[in-house]
This record gives sequence, C-alpha cells and structure tokens, in this order.
Amino acid sequence: MAEDFKVTPWEVSGDIDYDLLMERFGTTPIDEALLKRLSGYGEIHPMLRRGIFYTHRDMIRLLDEYDKGNKFFLYTGRGPSGQTHLGHLMPWIFNKWIQDVFGVPMLFQMTDDEKFLFKDLTLVDTKSLAYQNALDFVALGFDPEKTKIILDTENISALYPIALKVAKKVTFSTAKAVFGFDNSTNIGSIFFTTVQAAPAFLPSEQQGRQVPCLIPCGIDQDPHFRVARDAAPGLGYPKPSMLYCKMFPGLGGGDKMSSSDENATIYTTDGAKDVKKKVGRAFTGGRVSVEEQKKCGGNPEVCAVFKYNYYLFEKDDGKINDLADKCRRGEILCGECKAALTDKINVFLEDHQQKREKAKDIVDGMTFDGFKWVK
Amino acid sequence: MAEDFKVTPWEVSGDIDYDLLMERFGTTPIDEALLKRLSGYGEIHPMLRRGIFYTHRDMIRLLDEYDKGNKFFLYTGRGPSGQTHLGHLMPWIFNKWIQDVFGVPMLFQMTDDEKFLFKDLTLVDTKSLAYQNALDFVALGFDPEKTKIILDTENISALYPIALKVAKKVTFSTAKAVFGFDNSTNIGSIFFTTVQAAPAFLPSEQQGRQVPCLIPCGIDQDPHFRVARDAAPGLGYPKPSMLYCKMFPGLGGGDKMSSSDENATIYTTDGAKDVKKKVGRAFTGGRVSVEEQKKCGGNPEVCAVFKYNYYLFEKDDGKINDLADKCRRGEILCGECKAALTDKINVFLEDHQQKREKAKDIVDGMTFDGFKWVK
Repeated sequence: MAEDFKVTPWEVSGDIDYDLLMERFGTTPIDEALLKRLSGYGEIHPMLRRGIFYTHRDMIRLLDEYDKGNKFFLYTGRGPSGQTHLGHLMPWIFNKWIQDVFGVPMLFQMTDDEKFLFKDLTLVDTKSLAYQNALDFVALGFDPEKTKIILDTENISALYPIALKVAKKVTFSTAKAVFGFDNSTNIGSIFFTTVQAAPAFLPSEQQGRQVPCLIPCGIDQDPHFRVARDAAPGLGYPKPSMLYCKMFPGLGGGDKMSSSDENATIYTTDGAKDVKKKVGRAFTGGRVSVEEQKKCGGNPEVCAVFKYNYYLFEKDDGKINDLADKCRRGEILCGECKAALTDKINVFLEDHQQKREKAKDIVDGMTFDGFKWVK
Repeated sequence: MAEDFKVTPWEVSGDIDYDLLMERFGTTPIDEALLKRLSGYGEIHPMLRRGIFYTHRDMIRLLDEYDKGNKFFLYTGRGPSGQTHLGHLMPWIFNKWIQDVFGVPMLFQMTDDEKFLFKDLTLVDTKSLAYQNALDFVALGFDPEKTKIILDTENISALYPIALKVAKKVTFSTAKAVFGFDNSTNIGSIFFTTVQAAPAFLPSEQQGRQVPCLIPCGIDQDPHFRVARDAAPGLGYPKPSMLYCKMFPGLGGGDKMSSSDENATIYTTDGAKDVKKKVGRAFTGGRVSVEEQKKCGGNPEVCAVFKYNYYLFEKDDGKINDLADKCRRGEILCGECKAALTDKINVFLEDHQQKREKAKDIVDGMTFDGFKWVK
C-alpha cells in the first residue's frame, strides 16, 4: 500500500512516496517558475534539475529579500552517530553550491547531544564522531571565512537561551504529534528539537535584527523545522526557509543509505577494494540472465547503481539519459555499469580523502566560538 | 480534610500536613538519634531543634563518609522569580550554619531558566532578579573562598552534559508522575529537572570520583531530587543526601510566604515603615476583643507573629516557650507581640541591608567559571 512508509528525523522506512510525503508535511513543490528564478543566480545544480531537491518552504520570500540586499545565511547539520557516508555528503555538496552562488555565510550544527540521547552512544563517542564527520564537511570546500561549525555540547551557552525561548512555545502535545513521542520517550529527546531550532535564530539573536535563514537538508528533518517555524513569529525571529531533498538511496535497493547495513553503505574513508566489493553486491534493475537482459532490457528506475549515477556521480544530463536508454534496451549489462560506477566513486573518494587530510589543518579554525575538538 | 494540600516545586497550597507529606514523599524523620549525632559536630541549630528542618534522605551515610574523611559539598539554590523575602533566607541561613560547622564548599544554583519557563518573565528579568537575590545570599556571610554561585544560562556549558546524562534516564512517564505534568506542559519545563539535578553531580564529574553532596532545602523541592537520586547510580554518581525544611509561613496565616501577596511578605529591602505596616496587618491567634483575649488567652499555634519568632527571630528556647505560655494565658496581647516582632525584624533587616550593600563588592568574585552578572 502506498502509504506504508515512515519518515521522521530518527526513522525512515518503507517505500517512500515523496509526493505524498510533501502533501503530508505541507511543503511546496519546486516548480519550473522557481527553477527559472534560481537559474538567474547561477547554473542550476543537477540536484535541482533532477528533482532530488524537490520541495521547499518560503523560498520566494527568501529570494525577494535577497534581491533587496537582505542576505540570508545557510544552516544545515549532521547528527554524529557514525562515520560519514555518501548519503551525508549529498546535501552538503548542495549547500556548498548555494554558498558559492549566493556568497553567503553558513552555520553547520553537529548534534552530539541528539545522538547521545537517541542512540546507544556516549557523549565521548558522539563528540569524536563529530570531529570525523566535520573533516568530511570541511573537505567539500566551504569558505573557511564564512563557515562556522557548531558542536552542541560545546556551544550550548549560545544555543540554550534561544532553545529556552522556543521550548516555552512548544507543548508536549505538539512534540508528541509532530515526532510521535510517547510516555516512554526520555525527557532529553523531548527537549532536543529546541536545540536544533536554535542555530536558525542565532544570527538574529546576535545581531538584534531579523536575519533570513535558508536550511537545505533531507526532508526527514521537516518535523523539527515545522516546530521551529511555528515558534518563530512569537519570538520576533524570521521563519527559516527550507529546501528539502530526497533520501540518498542504499546500495541494497532501499530508499535510504543507512549505516545499519555496512555492506550497502559507502563511507568516505573506504578504500578502492571496499568500494568495488560493495558496488559489486549492489541491487540492480537487471534480469535473471544475460540473455533475458539483452532481450528485454533492465530497469534503471529501481537500480541502485543507476540511482548513484543520477544522484551524485553523473552530472551530465545527456549521459545519464543515454545510460537509462541503453539499460532499457539491454545494450549495457549490470557488470559493466557497476565497474563504471566503481571507477567514478573511487576517483571521487581518492580526491575527497586528500582534501579530508588537508581539512585537518583548517577544521580547528572553523569552530563556533573557538571550541576545541575531541579528536 | 487532612489530605487537601498540594506541595510541588511550583505550587504549595492548602494546609500542609508535614507528617503526611513526609510519608507521601518517602523521606525519613530527623529523630533524636540523628540530632544527637549532629550535636557532635557543633551546637544544634534552632531550626533542627524546633523541627523546622524535620526530615531527610541518607544523612547517616553522608555523616559516615564525613567521619571517614570523605567531605561532602553543599548544594542549594534559588529560582529568581522576584525579590528575596524572609522565606528565602531561612534555608540559606541553615546552609551557612552547615558550611561553618562542617567547613565544606557550597554550590548555589540560580535557576533563571526555570523561572523563565514556568513564569511570565523574560530571561532578562530572571537574570537581573538573580543578581538581586545573589546579594541577599552573599550577605549571609558564606565563605567566598568556598562558595560558588551558578547561574544556569551562564553556566549551562558545565551543566548541560550532566543534564543530558540524567535526561537519558528519565522518561516522560516519570516526569508526569513526579511533577504532575500533562500534554499542555511546555517541553522546556519537562526537561528542566535535569538542569536542577546537574550541580549535585558537578564536582563528581569534574573530579572524576564520587563526591558526596548534601542539599538542605525546602521539602517542596523533593520531587526534583527524587528524580536525580534515582538517576545517580546508573551514571556512576553518588545519590545526594537531603535535609528538608518546612515552608516559611506567610504573614496572612498561610503555610507559605508568597510573593503573590505583597502585603503579607517581608522583603529583604523593606524599610522599617513597611515592616511595621505588614506585621501590623498580620494574622494572629488573638481573640475578637481584648477582654476575651485576657480571659481565654490566644492561640500561638495558628499565629503568624508567633511563627516568625519560632522560625527565625527568637532563637532562645526559653524565651519562645515563655512567649507561647504568656499568649495562651492571655498575659500578652497581639499589639505588643507585633511591636516586638517588628523591632526584631527591623534590627535584623538593618544589619542585613548593610551586609547586602557590602555583598556588591564580593558577589562578582563568587560566580562559577567567572561569569558576569546582569545587574
């Protein structure tokens, strides 16, 4: 049944119907008119063209303000519960594109408190994972002059007064309805959404004026930002604008890459052999035999290998369409496709891993209020 | 009916049956044996002798540890929701006595976050009230070398990691049962108890060993510390020991002095005329006429003026018993008693107000981690 899926900040399961999800959450599609307007600022990113970033809240108002000279800042983040994988990089790459095109500052929040509260991890675990994840974020090339990384437990003194203001506006009833909490939820988890709301309002609080905020992130985070947006007007803060992407698919064919299946997850620190092995085992849209595939063709719609090209590794629209056509006509077999993707991923990772090493020299200078990393 | 009263950290109403309350909360009476043991450390404070501090948790274990050389630290606090009144001073005076007798350090927590969350006050309000309240605390003569004042929003970076650990152990179910929260409670209020728990574990966290903690405070705070004590063992912290006092009575005859009735509340900054007026209007145990009082005698048990002497202003047991006897025999009238109490309060306040002025020079140096006051 079409509605048999679940998307919350802590659980994504089932086959996601993204149109239905947009309807449920009440977000607005990114339509041709918005794409056309965005193309006025810079060449449209493939993730927008391809509908990976596919829905938004309040982008028109944000761009109107920008056009009047009222610049926004970017805010996105990461819950440090494990090593970084390709699914995490995807929205960060998009954020980097926005920073470049609009020349705006960025706050990157690492929610070590959240992952401590929701997972079987210690605060030492989540703090040191935050450092590992931060290296991947920095490796993507964010402007060190314009980008600050927040680590919740280290920067709580700046976040807490804002979190309190948000908290005073949100009842348990609301939290229960939005996040699906119940009586067995711990009271830290119930409070946490206020800490995730805080960076959206931090520049407004610090500058004493309404600073517009744009949050590009996975659509699974919308529950948090619905709460934050509802609280904003009563606190004198502007509602943050949102750009939401679909979940990065798993190699096993699921709708979301997840660290819970290590073999279906490509980490940023994986070596060439790991990648070859993992892609080799990927779920594809191929047929049961070579003969049948040559005769009937494959199905790129369900193929993890095709999706990886579509989401991240083949930016050329001509080439991606060509690949889909060839697959459908049975002119290319899964082994070939897997080998080509493996090469692309390994080229990407080799470069990324070099930049990740260099990030170690920059990441110390990018911390909000100058906190020291637990390495 | 005897059970028709309510005592929570945020509401005290009805005629409190303190024995029944002790039973409900599950605390232990301070008995003769404990008083005798305490008298071994220094002359027993009148508040102990008179059963104002009347019930405890885990005092025996605390004293056993102390006798072995394992010193405890004191922790108590104040929710800065208004100016300081005599009811606030009472347990602080007792804390000062403990500090002097046992020579121990003290953490004093000012919960500006709590009062923001639970009251119609801004964070600026609660912060500047905290400063005003701190002056009264310091004026009582706590050892500046051994005493640190915590202001939650300023010291949250030290408290938050501990609060998170407590929070992970406490479900909404528990918070609901202990504090009477419901679906309409804001999510900051639900989380807050973890921040009040944190100072009890702060020295243990900082020193990496189990540092015993003693919390002398009003019995209305027991719900918070039941939660904190339940969470402690699972976090490797010692359960704090508790010494609980009864509520300081209101001048209007109620069981608790409350800022909500200004005329029945004596503030530390009140002038001599204010005190005279307020005590003049106090509820007493007198009769409808002078004649009847001389004939039948008054009732000190219900008299606010007598209670003020008993709780705070007449430390001599002989004199207090004598006063009660005289009243019962009709040998002293309410006007006389009021005038005598007015004098005692004014002598106390004149001295206190001088010390409060001098506190302005000390209070800056007593902040935890050196935060700056909002004055």
